[in-house]
Amino acid sequence: MTHVLRPDWAGRLQRVQSSLAADGLDALVVSTPLNLTYLTGFTGSAGLLVLTSHSRYLLLDGRYEVAARERIAGGTLARVTVERVETRFDMSLAALLAREGLAHVGFEAGHTTVATLGRWQSAATAVRFQATERIVERWRAVKDAGEMVIFRRAARLLSDVARDLGRLVGANRTEREIAAAIDDALLGAGFEGPSFPTIVASGPLSAHPHARPTDRRPVAGDLVLLDFGGVLDGYCVDLTRMAVVGPPGPEAVALYEGVAAAHQAAIQAVRPGVVAWTIDRAARQVLEDRGLGTAFAHGTGHGLGLEIHEAPRIARAESDGTDTIEAGMVFTIEPGAYREHVGGVRLEDDVLVTPDGSEVLTDAPRALLVV
Amino acid sequence: MTHVLRPDWAGRLQRVQSSLAADGLDALVVSTPLNLTYLTGFTGSAGLLVLTSHSRYLLLDGRYEVAARERIAGGTLARVTVERVETRFDMSLAALLAREGLAHVGFEAGHTTVATLGRWQSAATAVRFQATERIVERWRAVKDAGEMVIFRRAARLLSDVARDLGRLVGANRTEREIAAAIDDALLGAGFEGPSFPTIVASGPLSAHPHARPTDRRPVAGDLVLLDFGGVLDGYCVDLTRMAVVGPPGPEAVALYEGVAAAHQAAIQAVRPGVVAWTIDRAARQVLEDRGLGTAFAHGTGHGLGLEIHEAPRIARAESDGTDTIEAGMVFTIEPGAYREHVGGVRLEDDVLVTPDGSEVLTDAPRALLVV
Repeated sequence: MTHVLRPDWAGRLQRVQSSLAADGLDALVVSTPLNLTYLTGFTGSAGLLVLTSHSRYLLLDGRYEVAARERIAGGTLARVTVERVETRFDMSLAALLAREGLAHVGFEAGHTTVATLGRWQSAATAVRFQATERIVERWRAVKDAGEMVIFRRAARLLSDVARDLGRLVGANRTEREIAAAIDDALLGAGFEGPSFPTIVASGPLSAHPHARPTDRRPVAGDLVLLDFGGVLDGYCVDLTRMAVVGPPGPEAVALYEGVAAAHQAAIQAVRPGVVAWTIDRAARQVLEDRGLGTAFAHGTGHGLGLEIHEAPRIARAESDGTDTIEAGMVFTIEPGAYREHVGGVRLEDDVLVTPDGSEVLTDAPRALLVV
Repeated sequence: MTHVLRPDWAGRLQRVQSSLAADGLDALVVSTPLNLTYLTGFTGSAGLLVLTSHSRYLLLDGRYEVAARERIAGGTLARVTVERVETRFDMSLAALLAREGLAHVGFEAGHTTVATLGRWQSAATAVRFQATERIVERWRAVKDAGEMVIFRRAARLLSDVARDLGRLVGANRTEREIAAAIDDALLGAGFEGPSFPTIVASGPLSAHPHARPTDRRPVAGDLVLLDFGGVLDGYCVDLTRMAVVGPPGPEAVALYEGVAAAHQAAIQAVRPGVVAWTIDRAARQVLEDRGLGTAFAHGTGHGLGLEIHEAPRIARAESDGTDTIEAGMVFTIEPGAYREHVGGVRLEDDVLVTPDGSEVLTDAPRALLVV
């Protein structure tokens, strides 16, 4: 059923358009591909959306223009005015801004390169371009009702795959073979594909947080880190569980218990109104208290959405963990601890911020899986 | 054999480092991910390479730093000095530039966003940052000996898949099923994966140059556009062939013959020293002479390499077709003609520019394949 629901493009566009006046902008040029997708459904490789308080122009070249008009007529693209770009986007953008008398124009500084802005400014010398940051991303971070439906379903499917890890890790499989089995299971569960390259890292290799699967076969005593996710209706979910080959040694148990406690502390710290770094601090404090502070070499989590990493960033204040948490945000909680030459542990779940705390969307056993 | 050859990182780094003085730069900050891969072999999601005429620093955070040191020791990453980023890249970059007394520092304006440059400048207030464009990309456009070995092999494998299209298009298959069969054939041929989402577009849908496969089954008289490619050792190749269901009608024949003549004219125009738009003009002139000028709504080709679209751009002068063609460049030749409600034709091959003309790397029948 959910597949036939259209994303609420009209509502999303209206929210962004309504915010322009407060920033003193005549218009905003949206160029970040996933912001275009979020606001209009457009997924091509080149397009510019120009929003004013009352108009929406989508500039497209000849590769996309005709198909876009058809999709608008068919209701599979937001209702926007398509403007055909004959040769260069900078020229067409300048012509549109001049025609509509738009003098103070915001652009997305987090996506627009220095080179692109230079071309726009050369083509539209009278326009005052204003750097903006995260106007659309802030809205993307707070999921609407349709997105929550997708996330709940995606997290349920991902949890189903996680509950099958005992079979997927299998006997005497290499890391690569385990990763391939997980990827097959993701497709079998109904995901469009993995949301990032699946990580399977065993023994000393698990000490590298972003290890790629190798031809290594886990051996007795090895920790096996399993980090994977899927894309459903364009949205990314993400989960990490830990296995161990035979009974774990005392160092592995200490890492696991520290991370599990940090994971729980972080989840308990999630609620609307807190600043993201306080969630990171809750996890980090637990690990520091156990002498594992320096073993935790990354942030506690990241927002999920059309991208596998998006706002908010659940990290130390000095690593940009400065977002205020709002109800409707969806992000990972994934503390880890890594010991060179020994191994690493990470536990990861996806949470939705609710009005009074959080809902853990992913639901699969977190215990060390002995294989 | 080619798999064990290491890319010539030392030579590539040396060429870029040697060019800095001519641009009056103390250093260049390389941040474009594929430029990092090209110069060092690094493939992580975050890293900065700072090059001076005599030094090479790779700034990495805790996720990548240890693995990078091990890869350098093992010879699978270029010999660079790894600098660990403790919290933020802008702070570490500023500290490095100050420590090494680097005052006039180039950055990649085609990748660095306005927001990122703002952060760097705020952290390193004494540094004069200088926009540069395509310093590394210009070298990437001219393939070295190791890259040519990969391209010849990749084009041979892709041609093998193309020669099997009669079987892959099959009887009564949907566009999606044909695309899946092509993707399977690419993997079977030894490619790491498709180099872009395979295009299979039949009948009126073939009039959209970037159509995505649907559940439509081609019917009698339909043109079927088949555009696909693979990635081998990180490098992308790309090919388009045309099929038709049963005998083609006169409109289809006219489109096909025009495009075939344009394709041939473009290939004959390829040689070192010409400007890219002259190749585009050769193709476009043929189509204009047949009344198909407006039906050709895209450029004639694009460079191939670590990206499916890179320099040079074989397009009209006003669409940035201003690169001078050099021996060693590899790009597509892919004129097309599209008639709304009728269908479209495109023929695409990959060419290597030789000292006295070109070598067409892809080699599979170009005739309309009647299925």
